[in-house]
Amino acid sequence: MIRRLGVCYYPEHWPETLWPEDARRMAEAGLSLVRIGEFAWSRLEPEPGVLRWDWLDRAIETLGAAGLKVVLGTPTATPPRWMLDRHPDMLARDLQGRPRGFGSRRHYCFSHPGYLEECRRIVTLLAERHGRNPCLAAWQTDNEYGCHDTVLSYSEAARDAFRGWLRARYGGANGGDIAALNAAWGTVFWSMEYRDFDEIDLPNLTVTEAAPGHWLAFRRFSSDQVVAFNRAQVQIIRAFSEAPIAHNHMGRETDVDHFALGGDLDIASWDSYPLGFLEDRVGAPPERQRRYARQGDPDFQAFHHDLYRAAATLAPAGGTPRWWVMEQQPGPVNWAPYNPAPLPGMVRLWTWEAFAHGAEAVLYFRWRQAPFGQEQLHAGLLRPDSAAAPGLTEAAQVARELADAPLVTQAQAAVALIFDHASDWAWRVQPQGRGLSYFGLVFDLYRALRRAGLSIDILSTAARDFTGYRVILAPGMMQMSDDLKTALNTSGAEILVGPRSAARTDDFRIPVPLPPAWPGLDVTVARLETLRPDMPRPLAGGGAAQYWIETLEGTADSLMALEDGTPVAMREGRVTYCGAWLDEPGLDRLVAGLCARAGLPCHALPDGLRIRDTAAERFWFNYGSETADTPAGPIPPAGVLRQPL
Amino acid sequence: MIRRLGVCYYPEHWPETLWPEDARRMAEAGLSLVRIGEFAWSRLEPEPGVLRWDWLDRAIETLGAAGLKVVLGTPTATPPRWMLDRHPDMLARDLQGRPRGFGSRRHYCFSHPGYLEECRRIVTLLAERHGRNPCLAAWQTDNEYGCHDTVLSYSEAARDAFRGWLRARYGGANGGDIAALNAAWGTVFWSMEYRDFDEIDLPNLTVTEAAPGHWLAFRRFSSDQVVAFNRAQVQIIRAFSEAPIAHNHMGRETDVDHFALGGDLDIASWDSYPLGFLEDRVGAPPERQRRYARQGDPDFQAFHHDLYRAAATLAPAGGTPRWWVMEQQPGPVNWAPYNPAPLPGMVRLWTWEAFAHGAEAVLYFRWRQAPFGQEQLHAGLLRPDSAAAPGLTEAAQVARELADAPLVTQAQAAVALIFDHASDWAWRVQPQGRGLSYFGLVFDLYRALRRAGLSIDILSTAARDFTGYRVILAPGMMQMSDDLKTALNTSGAEILVGPRSAARTDDFRIPVPLPPAWPGLDVTVARLETLRPDMPRPLAGGGAAQYWIETLEGTADSLMALEDGTPVAMREGRVTYCGAWLDEPGLDRLVAGLCARAGLPCHALPDGLRIRDTAAERFWFNYGSETADTPAGPIPPAGVLRQPL
Amino acid sequence: MIRRLGVCYYPEHWPETLWPEDARRMAEAGLSLVRIGEFAWSRLEPEPGVLRWDWLDRAIETLGAAGLKVVLGTPTATPPRWMLDRHPDMLARDLQGRPRGFGSRRHYCFSHPGYLEECRRIVTLLAERHGRNPCLAAWQTDNEYGCHDTVLSYSEAARDAFRGWLRARYGGANGGDIAALNAAWGTVFWSMEYRDFDEIDLPNLTVTEAAPGHWLAFRRFSSDQVVAFNRAQVQIIRAFSEAPIAHNHMGRETDVDHFALGGDLDIASWDSYPLGFLEDRVGAPPERQRRYARQGDPDFQAFHHDLYRAAATLAPAGGTPRWWVMEQQPGPVNWAPYNPAPLPGMVRLWTWEAFAHGAEAVLYFRWRQAPFGQEQLHAGLLRPDSAAAPGLTEAAQVARELADAPLVTQAQAAVALIFDHASDWAWRVQPQGRGLSYFGLVFDLYRALRRAGLSIDILSTAARDFTGYRVILAPGMMQMSDDLKTALNTSGAEILVGPRSAARTDDFRIPVPLPPAWPGLDVTVARLETLRPDMPRPLAGGGAAQYWIETLEGTADSLMALEDGTPVAMREGRVTYCGAWLDEPGLDRLVAGLCARAGLPCHALPDGLRIRDTAAERFWFNYGSETADTPAGPIPPAGVLRQPL
Repeated sequence: MIRRLGVCYYPEHWPETLWPEDARRMAEAGLSLVRIGEFAWSRLEPEPGVLRWDWLDRAIETLGAAGLKVVLGTPTATPPRWMLDRHPDMLARDLQGRPRGFGSRRHYCFSHPGYLEECRRIVTLLAERHGRNPCLAAWQTDNEYGCHDTVLSYSEAARDAFRGWLRARYGGANGGDIAALNAAWGTVFWSMEYRDFDEIDLPNLTVTEAAPGHWLAFRRFSSDQVVAFNRAQVQIIRAFSEAPIAHNHMGRETDVDHFALGGDLDIASWDSYPLGFLEDRVGAPPERQRRYARQGDPDFQAFHHDLYRAAATLAPAGGTPRWWVMEQQPGPVNWAPYNPAPLPGMVRLWTWEAFAHGAEAVLYFRWRQAPFGQEQLHAGLLRPDSAAAPGLTEAAQVARELADAPLVTQAQAAVALIFDHASDWAWRVQPQGRGLSYFGLVFDLYRALRRAGLSIDILSTAARDFTGYRVILAPGMMQMSDDLKTALNTSGAEILVGPRSAARTDDFRIPVPLPPAWPGLDVTVARLETLRPDMPRPLAGGGAAQYWIETLEGTADSLMALEDGTPVAMREGRVTYCGAWLDEPGLDRLVAGLCARAGLPCHALPDGLRIRDTAAERFWFNYGSETADTPAGPIPPAGVLRQPL
Repeated sequence: MIRRLGVCYYPEHWPETLWPEDARRMAEAGLSLVRIGEFAWSRLEPEPGVLRWDWLDRAIETLGAAGLKVVLGTPTATPPRWMLDRHPDMLARDLQGRPRGFGSRRHYCFSHPGYLEECRRIVTLLAERHGRNPCLAAWQTDNEYGCHDTVLSYSEAARDAFRGWLRARYGGANGGDIAALNAAWGTVFWSMEYRDFDEIDLPNLTVTEAAPGHWLAFRRFSSDQVVAFNRAQVQIIRAFSEAPIAHNHMGRETDVDHFALGGDLDIASWDSYPLGFLEDRVGAPPERQRRYARQGDPDFQAFHHDLYRAAATLAPAGGTPRWWVMEQQPGPVNWAPYNPAPLPGMVRLWTWEAFAHGAEAVLYFRWRQAPFGQEQLHAGLLRPDSAAAPGLTEAAQVARELADAPLVTQAQAAVALIFDHASDWAWRVQPQGRGLSYFGLVFDLYRALRRAGLSIDILSTAARDFTGYRVILAPGMMQMSDDLKTALNTSGAEILVGPRSAARTDDFRIPVPLPPAWPGLDVTVARLETLRPDMPRPLAGGGAAQYWIETLEGTADSLMALEDGTPVAMREGRVTYCGAWLDEPGLDRLVAGLCARAGLPCHALPDGLRIRDTAAERFWFNYGSETADTPAGPIPPAGVLRQPL
Repeated sequence: MIRRLGVCYYPEHWPETLWPEDARRMAEAGLSLVRIGEFAWSRLEPEPGVLRWDWLDRAIETLGAAGLKVVLGTPTATPPRWMLDRHPDMLARDLQGRPRGFGSRRHYCFSHPGYLEECRRIVTLLAERHGRNPCLAAWQTDNEYGCHDTVLSYSEAARDAFRGWLRARYGGANGGDIAALNAAWGTVFWSMEYRDFDEIDLPNLTVTEAAPGHWLAFRRFSSDQVVAFNRAQVQIIRAFSEAPIAHNHMGRETDVDHFALGGDLDIASWDSYPLGFLEDRVGAPPERQRRYARQGDPDFQAFHHDLYRAAATLAPAGGTPRWWVMEQQPGPVNWAPYNPAPLPGMVRLWTWEAFAHGAEAVLYFRWRQAPFGQEQLHAGLLRPDSAAAPGLTEAAQVARELADAPLVTQAQAAVALIFDHASDWAWRVQPQGRGLSYFGLVFDLYRALRRAGLSIDILSTAARDFTGYRVILAPGMMQMSDDLKTALNTSGAEILVGPRSAARTDDFRIPVPLPPAWPGLDVTVARLETLRPDMPRPLAGGGAAQYWIETLEGTADSLMALEDGTPVAMREGRVTYCGAWLDEPGLDRLVAGLCARAGLPCHALPDGLRIRDTAAERFWFNYGSETADTPAGPIPPAGVLRQPL
């Protein structure tokens, strides 16, 4: 696959006289894609119904004239101020019930019918005008659904839509069977029984927590609303354009189901800010934050690359999955608690790492640092005075390297990891221990796989054909259907599940027989405990169980146990159930055992050194701050090595 | 007294076909009391005015047929959803002014007249139907008043009722003397003077804090509203039933005055969750939390046992005080920051400790773990699949031991500790140092008494007859009447008061002459300081003053002093005033001195080993995780030893 | 200048029979000024329009008869309860949009026209009655503008006024040029463009942060509203009285521009609570908090003395700047997290330090500790029982020393530091690193100057005549006009600027050419980073850059550099630009270098020992807890030494 570089650009921010020179310099640096338009509604439609296409037409023309292709964003993340006069109740409401006002972005509720209609209108106009523009490379819908905690809205519009959604889900003859909902949520518990769907409120602002079934339903609904909102745009665009459609997600933003959304899109994409994420979202301990402050977490980007590659496999057209990094950090950002500059070389490393994981394109955010607005301290490839910033040099270097080096071709990995958004929601609803999250559990395991030198495919929950995988992992996946269990049992691979896998029904009830109720695996979770973080329980043979530990009963073999012999991981057939959240040494042992049984070679990598295997090469990446040795030779800090396999 | 075991049960949660088997197994395990009904309003009255008694009748009958007696709860903690349609403004409001919505429990304001009337109605119906049922052992009113911070409501209903309460308190000829209120609260301070009671708002959401007199009045009022709410139920029940009436309090829930409430009830009771409390409410330092993570704090349960035994002495019928543990933790719970399992043996230990402190009954919460609802990760005696959980084994063991062993008979202790809810409120209103609380001060002293091997009686503030006590303590009791001071002076016991004892009038003014103004004790608190926790001031002879230190003047003898000779504790007659919050070594010295002067023997107990003396025995409890030595022989972790006196 | 002592007194709090004795004791202690009246509105006007002057007349007469002079406060910080009936919407609203209710103080919005009119009315009446009273020494307007976070209000009144303010600022022919505002704020950034000023809301409660230009404008506006509110009172008072007018600010309260306010006042003043500030506002690390827990930060008071002396230079009458400490802590207070007592001698030290920095008067707050109200644990010079508290003894000692010792005469310092409130606001709007503030940066540098034994003049941003200064510093001053740069360049002094100096336009845009764009200094800030506090970057030669570091380009000389040679401070001509926030050793080197180049001698003072030079003397102050050596001999803890120069 041809790999491409690009950049995010806001022609409306700059005098038109600057455009040609900007376009020339982009092309000169080896960039070929330019994303524009996604925040420009107030320039496209300064007054309701008054459209101004001229500037956009000229901007696309100018870029096209320089040989660049355009990614055109729908502007629905930033409705203009006049929209509020037309739809005063379109604002989302936060957990505290306060309206989330105008003055920044994403100030809309996904459930507001009037705003949805306005979005349909502007997208129709935009698609009509530029849908067949030869300069068009792709579309982007909206921008970063869910950023600034915007998936969940507690507005009246959301409440009304939620009631309708519940009616449909708990369907009966006459528009909903309230008894089915009461049974599913267990509302009898505290006399919370409903007589009608119209009695149901949103689950916020209750005296103590609302029922877990109530919360999970609201999270499912909220994700569905985003998918429907996006689908409305996609359907319009497809009527006018054959260009592929993408949406750009933020890192560790799991409130919306990427797989459900991915089923409507042609290109999956995400916005990669390694340094901002390390400070703000990874949740690394301070030592790791210090060690990687200027490099980013060595596994966080890879995880998301693999996640969005998985989302891309669900695209309606099928074929080679297409996924992009729509925004790539090019220097210091403005929004993390602390905002250092990347170590020299890291912008190049991040870009190559995306390609090694299969990215079709990487676009830097943004072209020129804005001297105004909320992100004025967010670096661009250019400084505000148009001088080249360090990121531009590294981007141009990647462009040259792309031109000179062999194509990167993906291969299926030997290890598969199933990621389930609903499980992330379920753990948030019921963490049972402070700070425990599904994402954290899965990411800890993912890191252990990477420490073992493995390349990983992430799979959606819909996967049933596991051909070619030798190890498959589904930790913490709270709802697992019988057919998934069967498909895993018959895959021929070593399977790892637990803790908490298959622990709840779809409606958040504990199933009886008790979990995991796995065919062919005699293990029962008799009890579970959460532990103070300062009270891990040592394992016999090294490592420890921490945070979460289940009491396992059954006749399956004990693979790993506490020092007193209590089993922590048990195996029967090829299925291992691990009932605890293991620390790093424990996870390393667990992964080594899985690989040994699967006949899969491991490489215990030093901290900061990471591998990604493609069809013909092994890529080495050094996130460390010192030179490291590899079988292919030494690799400097921020270094990238391509080793033919 | 015969000691009984029981369990909390929710027949409405389970298929009726399970009931007989459940009842049989309860009886088989040696349980004789079953609490039911307190969350069942939506099943008793699914539509307004439509009553469904049949299932409850059958449930009681089924339990009775197995030889079990029932504790019947009034369902007023969980009004059904339809109640909101009838009384939309019945919801409490939180400190921020937000309504506390439907969807969990306790979503009512104690001051709402309409909801009170609904409660009267349902309680009347319930008492009419089952008041004379021979299977009835007792009543429980509502459930856990104050849980989830529900005593204080900032609703309009509360505001209106508060104004009426103030009119009554500051009574004048024409319905209240506003000048008296202004003088009492010192509203002249910042031009806060009122011209009428209707000008007075609740003390929340002011620019900086409201006047302490204002806050204290609101707290007194709020507790009184709960007492009145409860009394309304009690009066109805008594008209239809002779069964004794209880209410179950939560641990460290002091927003409502247990003694005021106790004066209306026949049985005092509380809900004992040692592990949940340790993580969530004890306020222990991390080392202690780690050490007792699976046992609970060694003194917290005992303190509450003694507290509710005191409340029980105020029951209208007099006689032997009746108090119960209405809910006993049987395994991991779901609501603390971390939720480990109890050390094997602890469920038994907790039960025996309650009996040793005089409990008449201990009921485990709950029979079967619920697979749905908010508490689905709260252990029961049974697992969700009806298999026995570890707690059941220990409960059955206690039942056998109860049958075989001598009766436990209470004796008056030699040490008395006065507990005053209004002082807890006053310290909250004016802590003067971050994190300082009356409860914390009293509990630190209580722990020191227990470390010295003493058994303690807690007394209410109404106590005036101190016959038989050799040491009486009233630390931090901010309002002390002259007759209490006199009664203590003439008790013949060693008296310990301070810091902050007698420091305020009932209306939260500093009295002149300055505190403590104690007859026969020439000590004056000239000044007070609060200290950073990392800046204790060492005492001459060992230990330190921390957090709170008063400058004492006067001619009384200096008993303990700082290293520079500044007195910290002074004594005259038999009264000691301690002007500082002492650390553990300091408290140990203080207690040892009191006992020595009172001729009371002490035993310096190792950490985790605790004593409770009854009329004929000394009970030893080992909260530690290693075997300990006692004069009666070795005692294993979680062990209980009965030594005849 | 004659230095005077005084006290804050509330005759309305006490029986009139106490007044003569109080006045006598004040005079006897050497106090000559008595501040009264600022919280007495409900006593002056108990019902709307019903005025009660008699008690105030008698109070002033009684004080005057004892030889005391009165500072009379306008009572506008505490409008009575009836005011709310007349102006229900006069309450400020907090950041969350909630009204800030009645029941404490400062419950008004500066932008409410109705309340402003009420203030004009009461001030007129008060000034008419007492404006020419011979006992009057001065006026105080309102009390502590901004205390309890009251400058910024998010009410409808504030919103409406803000729109008007913006119209005026972005003036066009027809009442405002909205295009100018859009350009200034860069609202195109996220389609935030406005079509009319009436579309602009306040910047709170947006989804993510509002535009920095929006926030800065709101902060400028909010300060202006306070200045206008104050000016309204000043204009009335001047019409009826020739007595000088003051306002008393709190420590580290920079939401209102002291210099703008100072231009309307005759006397600048502030309220000095060294112990409360150390715990609550200084932001010192725990070691420093422990070391100075009973003394206060050794530099915090001095900084404010110098700051308000600077404000006083802007008084309309000119001449010797008049500034006071209107409230001086006399013992433990009630409002800090922990409230210890001052070390013996500190009340005297604080008083003398104020005089050494040029204070004309120091008034202790308060005369007698109130036994009621919110501040009942705030010490006074008397205890609630009228006995002398320790503060009275020290105050009387100062009075005697003033009478016996030579007059203190101010001299211009050799070092000037420019303080800019708008920069403090700008850093709050855009800290870029957690916890970073302009105040913190400036204060760190001020402390370094004091460690070097220097006396400092703080200057307002309006200063252009720098005659006599040998070192001038303007760190972190984000907006610097060209004429200020020129004036500094031609001052002949060594100049220190940076980091972030001249980094933004008045509308919060990044200027191009990039900052600092300093004539004659070839330095450009190419990039900036913020650093985790645990990741300082060591300097070659000792010390480190921390928190904030800029990448400097240009040909100016590198004065200080990182260990790898990257310049951190660069100099050309006499101007040094330091691009980093240095730690203490780094700042000490920077200051030593500046002084050496300016030919200004330094004294590296031990921790806790501080100097202030007046015209004829060097004052030594020992904030330490051990005796220290000085060239003038040993100085005990809390000691003051006067050494003739």
